Amino acid sequence: MRSRSGMEQVLVENEVQQVRLLDSVNDEHGGVIVELSESMDSKVFASMLKASLALWRSQGKRGVWIKVPIELVNLVEAAVKEGFWFHHAEPKYLMLAFWIPEGAHTLPANASHRVGVGAFVMNKKREVLVVQEKSGIFQGKGVWKFPTGVVDEGEDICAAAIREVKEETAIDTEFLEVLAFRQSHKSFFEKSDLFFVCMLRPLSFDIEKQESEIEDARWMPWDEYEAQPFVQNHELVKHLVDICKAKEDEAYFGFSPVPLASKFSNEKSYLYVNDRDLKGSKVR
Amino acid sequence: MRSRSGMEQVLVENEVQQVRLLDSVNDEHGGVIVELSESMDSKVFASMLKASLALWRSQGKRGVWIKVPIELVNLVEAAVKEGFWFHHAEPKYLMLAFWIPEGAHTLPANASHRVGVGAFVMNKKREVLVVQEKSGIFQGKGVWKFPTGVVDEGEDICAAAIREVKEETAIDTEFLEVLAFRQSHKSFFEKSDLFFVCMLRPLSFDIEKQESEIEDARWMPWDEYEAQPFVQNHELVKHLVDICKAKEDEAYFGFSPVPLASKFSNEKSYLYVNDRDLKGSKVR
Repeated sequence: MRSRSGMEQVLVENEVQQVRLLDSVNDEHGGVIVELSESMDSKVFASMLKASLALWRSQGKRGVWIKVPIELVNLVEAAVKEGFWFHHAEPKYLMLAFWIPEGAHTLPANASHRVGVGAFVMNKKREVLVVQEKSGIFQGKGVWKFPTGVVDEGEDICAAAIREVKEETAIDTEFLEVLAFRQSHKSFFEKSDLFFVCMLRPLSFDIEKQESEIEDARWMPWDEYEAQPFVQNHELVKHLVDICKAKEDEAYFGFSPVPLASKFSNEKSYLYVNDRDLKGSKVR
Repeated sequence: MRSRSGMEQVLVENEVQQVRLLDSVNDEHGGVIVELSESMDSKVFASMLKASLALWRSQGKRGVWIKVPIELVNLVEAAVKEGFWFHHAEPKYLMLAFWIPEGAHTLPANASHRVGVGAFVMNKKREVLVVQEKSGIFQGKGVWKFPTGVVDEGEDICAAAIREVKEETAIDTEFLEVLAFRQSHKSFFEKSDLFFVCMLRPLSFDIEKQESEIEDARWMPWDEYEAQPFVQNHELVKHLVDICKAKEDEAYFGFSPVPLASKFSNEKSYLYVNDRDLKGSKVR
């Protein structure tokens, strides 16, 4: 919905005859969103923004979002001078925010966590799928590790685990469970990290390693994997080895994804639960 | 470590006698970090940045980070003109990034997820701790729900659950388990959301509700909680009710936090695992 009503009133209030207003859409929380796309002089933008803020104020609007594509970086300073602050940024845009009412704002917090996955994939010969990486902290150290990677924006954890295994080794897999997860802090600057260890069942067996990131990939006998000094000296990996061994004996249950429909959007989401225990308790 | 060496060489190369270089520290990945703090003219900054980039290039540096406090927003445009892009932003600063080598950069991805917690707290009378919120989607609808909140930057999930219960109701609790978690997408703009449902044991029982956010708080008999239309009509909440009921019967096990020491920093982290199953498998 375009917010053009009240424009004339504002023009009169400002005693400015020619000033245009910024195009905006209303959000669901009583605020407005502006997506800048047209290049303009920063002084012209400043006067449009002043007039638009006066209008939104008169309309009782609350939060104001301005998405600035990096090509229009020349407009950022003018908005900050009007009291906007940085909310979040991605390579191609900066999101600015402003709160019109009195008192503390109720705008959502910025994303605080990066999410990663590690994949435990074992075949029926009790061999585990492992890789050596071309870069990172284990580069050149001969360490064989589970495939790992970063969950993309908008990607499900279960989908990311399948994708990373496929990309690094060309092995097709079915997602089974999240076995455990680790939360750590200051992974880069002030941001935190959530790392989900996932168990997947292999559906194919011929490895083809990714040239760009992977030095080597193989099926390794579990005892050989476990005997690596890297495993023995690394507290997190030792815990994971205990879990994977318990898992092998079917004595450990993690969380399985249950798809949820959303009433509020078309986006599906997943609830990860201990499905074995839930089913068990329903049977009783 | 300050990177001043090679300065004279660059000055000669640029045939500029007076240009200063930007103060920088080396990072652990072959790159440099600049934290701007001194206000300056954007043209002066542009020439310092050009000279600094020439030096870093000659030194074989890789990633370059520039942290721009919001007060120095006038310097952002000059950096973008040199090829810097937006990496992430917080209210008080914008982090710019640049990659000197040929080829795709290997800088860490931005944070993609916001993290929330919900708290299931039940007393020995089979009453659950519930609140009515003053704002949000359930405002004014008479819905009684578990205390919930956003995990702060750098905060552990288990600490956040205890803090939210304390803030909203003044009840002291001990953290027991993550019972389940949900991942959803596009929670705000393109960002995703991870919501951890936690079980806590109450250590105190006298409720004092938070004035600013909470309309009311009480201990509610479980059957009354479950009978609410909100519970019956909400797929996620229905799943959670099943879990909580199984949990009551000690027939459901979630993930408990195990503290991990880090070899790489003083930051502690937590691994969340199905501790019951792990202990069980060790006993056998």
